[in-house]
Amino acid sequence: MQLGVLGLGRMGRIVVDRTLAAGHDVVAFDLDDDAVAAADDAGATPVDSVAELAAELGDEKRIWLMVPAGEPVDAALADLEPRLDGDDIVVDGGNSHFEDSVRRAEETDAAYLDCGTSGGPAGAELGFSLMVGGPQWAYDELSPVFDAVATGPEGHDRMGPAGSGHYVKMVHNGVEYALMQTYGEGFELLANGRYDLDLESVARTWNNGAVIRSWLLELCEEAFREEGTDADELGDVADHVAGGSTGTWTVQEALEQEVPVPLIYQSLAERFGSRAPESGRFSRRLANRLRYGFGRHEVAREE
Amino acid sequence: MQLGVLGLGRMGRIVVDRTLAAGHDVVAFDLDDDAVAAADDAGATPVDSVAELAAELGDEKRIWLMVPAGEPVDAALADLEPRLDGDDIVVDGGNSHFEDSVRRAEETDAAYLDCGTSGGPAGAELGFSLMVGGPQWAYDELSPVFDAVATGPEGHDRMGPAGSGHYVKMVHNGVEYALMQTYGEGFELLANGRYDLDLESVARTWNNGAVIRSWLLELCEEAFREEGTDADELGDVADHVAGGSTGTWTVQEALEQEVPVPLIYQSLAERFGSRAPESGRFSRRLANRLRYGFGRHEVAREE
Amino acid sequence: MQLGVLGLGRMGRIVVDRTLAAGHDVVAFDLDDDAVAAADDAGATPVDSVAELAAELGDEKRIWLMVPAGEPVDAALADLEPRLDGDDIVVDGGNSHFEDSVRRAEETDAAYLDCGTSGGPAGAELGFSLMVGGPQWAYDELSPVFDAVATGPEGHDRMGPAGSGHYVKMVHNGVEYALMQTYGEGFELLANGRYDLDLESVARTWNNGAVIRSWLLELCEEAFREEGTDADELGDVADHVAGGSTGTWTVQEALEQEVPVPLIYQSLAERFGSRAPESGRFSRRLANRLRYGFGRHEVAREE
Amino acid sequence: MQLGVLGLGRMGRIVVDRTLAAGHDVVAFDLDDDAVAAADDAGATPVDSVAELAAELGDEKRIWLMVPAGEPVDAALADLEPRLDGDDIVVDGGNSHFEDSVRRAEETDAAYLDCGTSGGPAGAELGFSLMVGGPQWAYDELSPVFDAVATGPEGHDRMGPAGSGHYVKMVHNGVEYALMQTYGEGFELLANGRYDLDLESVARTWNNGAVIRSWLLELCEEAFREEGTDADELGDVADHVAGGSTGTWTVQEALEQEVPVPLIYQSLAERFGSRAPESGRFSRRLANRLRYGFGRHEVAREE
Repeated sequence: MQLGVLGLGRMGRIVVDRTLAAGHDVVAFDLDDDAVAAADDAGATPVDSVAELAAELGDEKRIWLMVPAGEPVDAALADLEPRLDGDDIVVDGGNSHFEDSVRRAEETDAAYLDCGTSGGPAGAELGFSLMVGGPQWAYDELSPVFDAVATGPEGHDRMGPAGSGHYVKMVHNGVEYALMQTYGEGFELLANGRYDLDLESVARTWNNGAVIRSWLLELCEEAFREEGTDADELGDVADHVAGGSTGTWTVQEALEQEVPVPLIYQSLAERFGSRAPESGRFSRRLANRLRYGFGRHEVAREE
Repeated sequence: MQLGVLGLGRMGRIVVDRTLAAGHDVVAFDLDDDAVAAADDAGATPVDSVAELAAELGDEKRIWLMVPAGEPVDAALADLEPRLDGDDIVVDGGNSHFEDSVRRAEETDAAYLDCGTSGGPAGAELGFSLMVGGPQWAYDELSPVFDAVATGPEGHDRMGPAGSGHYVKMVHNGVEYALMQTYGEGFELLANGRYDLDLESVARTWNNGAVIRSWLLELCEEAFREEGTDADELGDVADHVAGGSTGTWTVQEALEQEVPVPLIYQSLAERFGSRAPESGRFSRRLANRLRYGFGRHEVAREE
Repeated sequence: MQLGVLGLGRMGRIVVDRTLAAGHDVVAFDLDDDAVAAADDAGATPVDSVAELAAELGDEKRIWLMVPAGEPVDAALADLEPRLDGDDIVVDGGNSHFEDSVRRAEETDAAYLDCGTSGGPAGAELGFSLMVGGPQWAYDELSPVFDAVATGPEGHDRMGPAGSGHYVKMVHNGVEYALMQTYGEGFELLANGRYDLDLESVARTWNNGAVIRSWLLELCEEAFREEGTDADELGDVADHVAGGSTGTWTVQEALEQEVPVPLIYQSLAERFGSRAPESGRFSRRLANRLRYGFGRHEVAREE
Repeated sequence: MQLGVLGLGRMGRIVVDRTLAAGHDVVAFDLDDDAVAAADDAGATPVDSVAELAAELGDEKRIWLMVPAGEPVDAALADLEPRLDGDDIVVDGGNSHFEDSVRRAEETDAAYLDCGTSGGPAGAELGFSLMVGGPQWAYDELSPVFDAVATGPEGHDRMGPAGSGHYVKMVHNGVEYALMQTYGEGFELLANGRYDLDLESVARTWNNGAVIRSWLLELCEEAFREEGTDADELGDVADHVAGGSTGTWTVQEALEQEVPVPLIYQSLAERFGSRAPESGRFSRRLANRLRYGFGRHEVAREE
């Protein structure tokens, strides 16, 4: 099979390499010439423009978009659209909002597959987990590529119609936030608890046979190993958690569906809290002051 | 009626003054001579020791303890015990744990009333809310004093047997934590929201007729008035909330009774969070690092 | 002053009565003829249509909309619009979303005041709390009416430009949810705790002098008095909390502003939880089943 | 090595089998004769009493207790104590509270190892994760047995002094609660969301390469496969989560250490909520009633 890949960043490049390794042909394009040259070196056919990409792919184009969510996806689709018809298939492998994917699927003449992609750069070796939404025939047609990019046939499935792939990926990320925060709470208690523990040893012991073993816990173990070995085993890692868009979408959707997700919400709130203004959290400042109001307790003040 | 008051701090002194104002006699003792002298000036009979206090009160002693919870209560009771019999009544007006009160009620020969006291220094003018546990006859006997110390007959009641007064006060304080944090959340959103608002004006408008009006909201209004008038209307008030023992007891009891109290718990957790070590919350530091682990997102680090 | 009131439901009727009582003239319209007739009996000038309302008010119309949020507001404004110019003032006293209010303010030729109204039917006697957004001149012009409808001059204020009144009201309602749930947690613990308490007595005692006294706590006291006097003092009141739109808006806005509001969120989640499907909460059903998965703990099943 | 195993329930029996499989000798005792006979069949040396167990083991006894936490551990130790000296080693492989383990370590003459054991019955094949507290020499001495019972040398480690093994296991379980509830929230949203999804397929796709893959997620996949295949894929599994002691201990310890653990707390609160009385959650019933109090909203009532 011949696959066009549009977007050759870290994730796009993994798609290229795994597709090539499975014996398929890849036509590669990116706005960054160096990225195109590197894909060329890896065995892909380099092209200089979207027009050339489309020309190279001929009829029945199969195109994988791996560009940042939002505007870049719409921009790529605008370039592609005049060259697409109903025999073509476009995959969006990024973190798009599912409602954007539904809209794009309706707007394009091609069959549109929204493909939630999880696994991060580690997927280069292991393969990704792919959650795909869109027409069944298009999913079936691209299965050889999905087999290659995912961990194998078990690592991808069609979730349902347009938008369902990114919908499931959105919820995946909400769960991811809360799993991370949960491990964090456990280790925070251990780090501040009654015993002087080696957190790397704790994580390793848990990762071998314990109920809570997981890939994220392996990453905890790795973090403790790489960041330090003293009581505070995270070295200079700051209390500042970036990101949050997919978790926010998850909570927004849970509000719409009236489904309680307090753990996912709280893990998102912790991120917001980690990015509070320098003066701190206003709510707690007010609680501090109110204790004076009714009890004449001393007010802690900034120096 | 003649009342002995043991402990003449801010709260004890209010008990003295309100009891005197209602036409009763007060015998006053404190380890601090100045506090005794001040009570003397106010019209109380000063005494130099617990022995003298007991002697002055004669038979059918009525004694109000207003000393810090814990050790000081046991110490006062140890001094009093040889001088007490079943016709005497001892009131503990402090923030004792209800299980201590049950124990003390069992250990003393006197009738023991555990009396949760709410209202803070503002109670000097308005009177307190008194939640009383212990024998009915002792509660009835002391009602004239409770009428004087509380806002009036509506401001006190017998909750039930020994410990119930401090039990209800404990839950009161758990509720208090969550009410404060709730107002804090609302004002935090307004302070960081889309409009440049005058928070004092918001609080005043709400306090006049709105569903959420309350004494704590009046204290919010006061805080905004006294601390500042610009966008950030809490001046240099720090994000550091002290205290937490009664809230902790509330959550502990809720765990025992298997009653979910997530709002009360979270308001306590916010206090703990406001007192995190300088390196910040370990849980969030780990989440920060894990985002690198799976996604190669840049790790924010302390400088 | 002459005020047109459009919408004569419970809240609209209170606006009519309080405005009349303050010596102003009211022109009253509603789609329901009976409501118009009742307002006529109360002293208002009845009209049969929006056209007649506008005609009666002449130049410099002052019109108070008190219709359900959403479509009805737009419908009323569509009827009014051809009859409005820049000397007219329209007040929306309902629970509109602030973004709708911003849009409507831009679309109408009249000066538009979005007016958050709190206090419920109890406001008939006491007066409401009014949070007003929009042009200063229009707010000033309507102040006599606001004085009448609110508890008095302290019970209303201009929060800021268009939308700010409904914005502050939205946050008010989020706070309201969490205050209710907080009192609920406290009383749930007391109802399931170690003592057999009279919850009405607890609430009354707290309402007289305690730090947590509030109007909502007075409503708790009333609820316990009216619903029952045994251990379970809420009779047949169901665990089913309706409503939730303004609380949802509050959380949505807090997500946008990245402000943590865990207590408000959780109080909303409790409402969702109280409306779970008959099979219960899926999350807990899965946790139940997972305990079998790793520990062979017996799975509780529906009969 | 010769190991005495006291307690031959499901977990104890796995200890026996894995120890035998590694070429060690096992002396097996249980109050249940059938369990002893079964261990005999499996190759262990059966004994009829604690006295006989001790006699069979001779000097330098190595004894693994695998009995329910609490009273049974103390009872077993009371029987053993007269027969123990400082050359003996006792392992408690159950879910004891760490403070009990500290006490028992102080009270016994033997070297005492508290050993948190995770992995459940699945550990029969895979081996357990063992978190061990107590003297280094005793841990080293028993390492061959730990190698056999755990997944291997990586599956066990000495956490620190007495109590630390059960301390780390306690926190492990708190984390376990929150991980389960987190997956539950994700699947609850998917089950009630916009798409008709096959949850088993979702779980399988995630388990192959996704960031959130874990053993618990494999158990989710198994649960969906075994319980049903329709939209509601948990069949008649009830919303009733039993258990909670170790999670309660975790939260209690976090309160002592003033470490915020809102996700772990909430997952425990969900269990409590799933076991609410038939009338439901009092807090939400009160919120329901309060909405009538201020807004005259209809009160939902039990039929």
